Amino acid sequence: MNIKSENMKSENMKFDIVIIGAGPSGLFSAFQAGMLGMKSALIDALEVPGGQCAALYPEKPIYDIPAHPYILSQDLVDKLYEQANAFNPKYFLAQQVVTLKTCDNFFELSTSKNITIEAKAVIIAAGAGSFGPNRPPLKDIEKYEGKSVFYLVSNRNLLAGKNIVIAGGGDSALDWALSLSEIASVTIVHRRDKFRAAPATISKIQEFAQAGKINLATNYQLSDINGNDGLLKEVIISDLNGNSKSLKADILLPFFGLAQNLGPILDFGLNLNMHHIKVDHPYFETNIKGIYAVGDVATYEGKLKLILTGFAESAAALHHAYCRVFDGKPLHFEYSTTKGIKQ
Amino acid sequence: MNIKSENMKSENMKFDIVIIGAGPSGLFSAFQAGMLGMKSALIDALEVPGGQCAALYPEKPIYDIPAHPYILSQDLVDKLYEQANAFNPKYFLAQQVVTLKTCDNFFELSTSKNITIEAKAVIIAAGAGSFGPNRPPLKDIEKYEGKSVFYLVSNRNLLAGKNIVIAGGGDSALDWALSLSEIASVTIVHRRDKFRAAPATISKIQEFAQAGKINLATNYQLSDINGNDGLLKEVIISDLNGNSKSLKADILLPFFGLAQNLGPILDFGLNLNMHHIKVDHPYFETNIKGIYAVGDVATYEGKLKLILTGFAESAAALHHAYCRVFDGKPLHFEYSTTKGIKQ
Repeated sequence: MNIKSENMKSENMKFDIVIIGAGPSGLFSAFQAGMLGMKSALIDALEVPGGQCAALYPEKPIYDIPAHPYILSQDLVDKLYEQANAFNPKYFLAQQVVTLKTCDNFFELSTSKNITIEAKAVIIAAGAGSFGPNRPPLKDIEKYEGKSVFYLVSNRNLLAGKNIVIAGGGDSALDWALSLSEIASVTIVHRRDKFRAAPATISKIQEFAQAGKINLATNYQLSDINGNDGLLKEVIISDLNGNSKSLKADILLPFFGLAQNLGPILDFGLNLNMHHIKVDHPYFETNIKGIYAVGDVATYEGKLKLILTGFAESAAALHHAYCRVFDGKPLHFEYSTTKGIKQ
Repeated sequence: MNIKSENMKSENMKFDIVIIGAGPSGLFSAFQAGMLGMKSALIDALEVPGGQCAALYPEKPIYDIPAHPYILSQDLVDKLYEQANAFNPKYFLAQQVVTLKTCDNFFELSTSKNITIEAKAVIIAAGAGSFGPNRPPLKDIEKYEGKSVFYLVSNRNLLAGKNIVIAGGGDSALDWALSLSEIASVTIVHRRDKFRAAPATISKIQEFAQAGKINLATNYQLSDINGNDGLLKEVIISDLNGNSKSLKADILLPFFGLAQNLGPILDFGLNLNMHHIKVDHPYFETNIKGIYAVGDVATYEGKLKLILTGFAESAAALHHAYCRVFDGKPLHFEYSTTKGIKQ
């Protein structure tokens, strides 16, 4: 994927459609906007399009995309990106929408990179929101992040020979503990003595612990970290009775899962239901006319959180938005086979 | 495509789901039924799955199937067929549903091949209905069909040296007239003196007519056919004033386009609207509980006749049918990435 993100600052950009979120539903919305002759912009908090599919599980196979008996998550978004790009939508990546203002017959959005975008209609395809790791509530942890505290391991070899504290009791924590124990000294800190992982993985952890290849600190929680200039020296852990001990540590890997949050979207004045945006049927328009929500973020009676459902919602929303974008011009429905595509 | 159609006669076959129509929406319904653990059967009037995509425009490129920036119509249905077949649905091809009976907690359908099928829920994915050529209203024409009257040319060489009457003024009529004039004696019968075909084709027809390579009988209509044992001897044509003349003919090729018809489905007691079946939203259930309609045959406010819309309707209908099929068992929603697929 060769990504071209817009980096203009403080410019006033005008589009027919602005799409918040560049996951599968957002990308297909951009394609659908293009098919209908509408110029679109996509905004996403991530640095690449693809949403969760690209960021969380790129290697996962998906079986229920129609006419793709099997497709890897990353390949799916690559194809959607290619399909959308036939119409040259503009991408505003690595930034969140911060404000949305309803004007006379358009909307004005500003992003965390101080870009102001105008559009005649808004498609919110934000999934479960922008996401990041659950961070342990440790004082000054942000000073260590990216230097000696990591929420994912991007280069295993850099950890060779280190004293590593892994916090968490799920698959990520245990899988990395097993893997890193081959090249480093590993301690697992977990607040319970039971793990929530594949049974085979748990057996192996116990076997490694008995053989002294991994240290277990169960019934303990992280309570403090100490070091200099972002480089860790020790991790302090404590049990439920308040008894603390120090673990010598160069690296801390907290694996507490990912949190997602709709962030500023929650303040747009939309009708919400449990972190989802309520939309009407069958146009997927929100309580604010001209703002639509599609894909996982949208909720209505009978909603199925399937990727393919998001595609159909996108098509319906963009067809409905057409009239608003073109000031009442009626839409003459055409099949893609008849119309072809802009090359 | 390696097609396996069931040919059992007079057997009583029980399924969870029966799907009427094996076009894109029908095939995806079979896949979706399988994903939810439901055994399905598909019935189609054509000899192969794929509906219009396979039968009418297999070579046409489609641009708006999500994550397929470009796909030929036939390739689309091939992939949907492969995807459905992970769950071994049963295909009942080259037959129409003739009757549908609502029983206590199931439906009983019979086909034109005398097969009786029971199912707990019915998905109608019949598109614009089963289709066939528009037949000219000539007495006894059915006795000649397949012997000397053909609605399509499957083997051009068998027509060499024959006296051929081609009826119609569209592209099919003119293209075949040009092609067959190389190996046979061709007369075009058309009720007007203007043709509705590509300008280049019309020019060529006029050029061929002037050179005596093709005979034109414009402002004439077919009025009668004569022959023995299904073999034509003459075609009688007449003008608007009732003046008739006889054309010596071995072969008649009427090219009057294709007609589609829902046929017996119109008598199932469903609420209809202009040859479409009315369904509710968002479950796509008809007025008869347990019978759903999806894809082009289904209508509701805001309906978009897109293939991708049919996919989402299929998913919604099958999820809703689950409870009926499994006698009230609640559906625990799972992503395909988590669940994987039966291999």
